[in-house]
Amino acid sequence: MERLPGFRDFYPEPLPHSDVWSADVRNYLFDKWRNTARAFGFREYDGPPLEPLDLYTLKSGEEIVGQLYNFIDKGNRAVALRPEMTPTLARLVGAHERHYKKPVKWFSIPQLFRYERQQKGRLREHFQFNADLLGETDPAADAELIALLISLLQACGLTPSDFVIRLSSRNAWHDYFARSSADPAREYEFYQVIDKLERATPDESEAKLAALGLSLDAVRHFIEAGQPTPELSTIIQDLSARGLAEFVKIDYNVIRGLAYYTGPVFEAFDRQGQFRAIAGGGRYDHLVGLITGGKVQLPAAGFGLGDVVLTEIITQRRLLPKLEARLDAFCLIEDESIRRDSLRLIHELRQAGCAVDFPLAPLKSDKQFKRALDSHAAYTLRLERSTHGEISVRIKNLRTREENVASPAEVLPLLRLP
Amino acid sequence: MERLPGFRDFYPEPLPHSDVWSADVRNYLFDKWRNTARAFGFREYDGPPLEPLDLYTLKSGEEIVGQLYNFIDKGNRAVALRPEMTPTLARLVGAHERHYKKPVKWFSIPQLFRYERQQKGRLREHFQFNADLLGETDPAADAELIALLISLLQACGLTPSDFVIRLSSRNAWHDYFARSSADPAREYEFYQVIDKLERATPDESEAKLAALGLSLDAVRHFIEAGQPTPELSTIIQDLSARGLAEFVKIDYNVIRGLAYYTGPVFEAFDRQGQFRAIAGGGRYDHLVGLITGGKVQLPAAGFGLGDVVLTEIITQRRLLPKLEARLDAFCLIEDESIRRDSLRLIHELRQAGCAVDFPLAPLKSDKQFKRALDSHAAYTLRLERSTHGEISVRIKNLRTREENVASPAEVLPLLRLP
Repeated sequence: MERLPGFRDFYPEPLPHSDVWSADVRNYLFDKWRNTARAFGFREYDGPPLEPLDLYTLKSGEEIVGQLYNFIDKGNRAVALRPEMTPTLARLVGAHERHYKKPVKWFSIPQLFRYERQQKGRLREHFQFNADLLGETDPAADAELIALLISLLQACGLTPSDFVIRLSSRNAWHDYFARSSADPAREYEFYQVIDKLERATPDESEAKLAALGLSLDAVRHFIEAGQPTPELSTIIQDLSARGLAEFVKIDYNVIRGLAYYTGPVFEAFDRQGQFRAIAGGGRYDHLVGLITGGKVQLPAAGFGLGDVVLTEIITQRRLLPKLEARLDAFCLIEDESIRRDSLRLIHELRQAGCAVDFPLAPLKSDKQFKRALDSHAAYTLRLERSTHGEISVRIKNLRTREENVASPAEVLPLLRLP
Repeated sequence: MERLPGFRDFYPEPLPHSDVWSADVRNYLFDKWRNTARAFGFREYDGPPLEPLDLYTLKSGEEIVGQLYNFIDKGNRAVALRPEMTPTLARLVGAHERHYKKPVKWFSIPQLFRYERQQKGRLREHFQFNADLLGETDPAADAELIALLISLLQACGLTPSDFVIRLSSRNAWHDYFARSSADPAREYEFYQVIDKLERATPDESEAKLAALGLSLDAVRHFIEAGQPTPELSTIIQDLSARGLAEFVKIDYNVIRGLAYYTGPVFEAFDRQGQFRAIAGGGRYDHLVGLITGGKVQLPAAGFGLGDVVLTEIITQRRLLPKLEARLDAFCLIEDESIRRDSLRLIHELRQAGCAVDFPLAPLKSDKQFKRALDSHAAYTLRLERSTHGEISVRIKNLRTREENVASPAEVLPLLRLP
C-alpha cells in the first residue's frame, strides 16, 4: 500500500532516504515561524482544509479548477481542498470584521493542495506560512510584511548572501501600460506576459507583446531602469531604517501571476538562482470586498512562504541543527522486584516535564544500556533497594560518565543541572 | 460565502459566538499534548491527509465508504480524506520497519474527516491526538499508553473527579463467547451488540443476543461481576505503581466498535456522563500485517484523543487559562521625525524575541495609547530626541505605571524584567 504521488510522509527524525521527510524538521520550521510572527505582533488563525469550490472560482475564474482537488461531496456540494489561504482569510475577517481593531495582523500555517501534472520532485501539497495585514493602505504595511518575511528566513539561518527580496509593483506596470496606447481591457493579459518573461523565449514574449501593440525592447528597458515608484521608495526607506536594505532590490520582472494583486508585489529568491521562489506576496486591496460580496471593504496585503523550497535550501546549506530523539533519562530496570518503585519515580519525573523512558518488559542489562545510548538519554537511572528496604537511585551522566547516588526525591533537581 | 457545514474556522482569541473556535485554544491543547507525549518518550510523525481509498476499505470493509470524504482524483485514483490515522501509521512503520528499534513509540495530531449525517453540533472534522506503541506484546505497553492518556488529560487540568478510564478487553468477551455454544463465525456480530448495549433498548439487545443463542441477563451479570482478566490485572497493578489507580475502572460495557482490536480496550469518559467519549483505543496486534500485506508483523496498541469533546469539557469546567493577544511592548510614535529611529529599535527588540507592535501610519496620541492597552502590551516605549540629537527611550510599565528613561541599547534588558 503506497501513499499517493506528490504527497509526503513525515517520519520523526530525518531518514537516509530522499523521499522521506521529517516531522522534527517541520516542527523546527513551524516553531521558528510562529515565534517570529508573534514577535511582529501577528496572531494565528486557521480555517477548513476543505472549502466550497466557489470560494476559489469567484476569485481566480473557472480556469483554476483544472489545478484543484475538487469533487462533489455526499451532500451534493461542489468542494475543493484549499489551494491557497487568502480566500479563507477574507471570508473569516469579513464574517467578524467589526470585532477587530485595524490593522488586523494575522498568520496561519495551512497545508495547501494543487493537482499539478506530476513532475519529478513536484509535490501536490505543501505547508505554507501565510501572513496578512488588513485595514492599512500605507506602504508601511507592505514594509512590515517584507520585514517579517526577511526575519522568518533569518530565523532559519539564512543571510543576505543566501537570499534577496525582489520588490516590484503592479502600479508601476499599470502606469506603464496606461502610458502605452494599448487596449485597457487587455491589461491583465499584459501582466501575464510580464509574469512569464523570464521563463519564455524572447520570440514568444516579443510576439505576445506585439499583439498588444508593445515592444519587448521597451519593456526590457523599463525593467533595467528599475525606477522605484513613490510607494516602493517609501518601503525601501522603511526597511533601511530597520537595517534590512541589503535584503531588498527593485526588480520589475516580478509581477505575480494571480489576478487580484493591486500594488506592491514581492518574491524571495536564493541569490544563486538554484531554486524556485522561496516566498511571494503583495497588496490585494479589493479581494475582501469581492469575497464578502461587497459587504466588507478592507485594503490588505500578505505573503506566503512554503516549507518545501525552504527545507531544500537550509538542508543544502547545512543550516539545520541536529534533530534527534533525546531523553532526559532512561531508567534501567535490571531487577524486576524494583519495577514498581521504578514506575513511581518515572511517572513523577514525567509529571515534572522530564522526558523519561524505560524497558516495558524484562530485557538483558546490556540491551537496556544500549537502548539508553540509542535514545540519546542524558542520564541513566537505576534503582537499588538496601537490606533495610530503602530505595536509592544511581544516576549516571552518560556524557561525563560521572555517577551519583541519591534518594528518589533528590533525582529531579539533579537531572535539571546542565 | 459560508464555510462548509461541519467544518470549523479558528479565530485567534475566543470570540463571543458559539460557532467560532479559537486557534489560541487549539495551540494551547497541542502544546500540552506534545510536551506530555515527549515526556513519555513518544516521537511525532505525520502522513498525508489524503490517502488511497483502499487503505481504509482493506481494514474496515466497504461499509466505511458511506462515512468518508472519498472521490476520484484527476489521475483516476480512488482517494479519501483520512477518517483515522492508524492505517497511515501502519503503512509508515511497515515501509521502514527495520530502521526502528522496538518498541516504536510515536504520536501525531492529524485532522480527521468523516462525512456523518449532519446533526446539531456534530462536526465532520476534528483534530485527534494519536499515540501508538508498536513491537511490544507485554501489557506494560497498554499500561504505558493509558498512563499517557491520563497525563494528557491531567495536563489540561482534569482531575480524577472529572474523568475515568473504562478498561475492558476483547479477550474477556472472546472467552465469554467461546464458552457459549454460539456460532464462532458470528463473534464480531456479538461484539457489535455489546458495543451498542448502553445505547440500545433492552428489548433490542435481548433480541439480538437471543439470535446468537445468548441471554441479556447473563451478559449483564458478566459485566457487573467485572472480573479482571490476567492482562487487565497486570495493567491495573502497573498503573497503581504509578499512582494512577483512581483514574481507572474495569468496565466490560466497553468493547470498541472497530473490527481490528485484539486485546485490552479502553475509553475515557467524563464522570458525570454529560459528554461523548473523550478518548478511546486498544490493542490491534494484526493490523500492521494486514496493511503491509503480511510483509511486516508487529504487535501494537494505541489510542486517539479528539479536540472537540475535550475543549467542550475544559471550557465548561473553566480550566482554560486566559488566552489573549499579548505584547511585550507597544512603541508609540507621536512625532513622525522619530519614526526611523523607532523602527530601528522595534526591529532590534523583535530580533531578540520580544513581541513589539507600533502604529504603521500616523495616528493621534490617545488612539495610539488605546491600541497599546487593547493589545495588552506590558510596556509602552516612546523615543525622544534631545536638543543635542541624542535618542532616549521613555519606558512605561502599563501595570505599575512606573516610568524609566533609558538609551535604546538599555531597553531590551529592562523589558525582560518580570
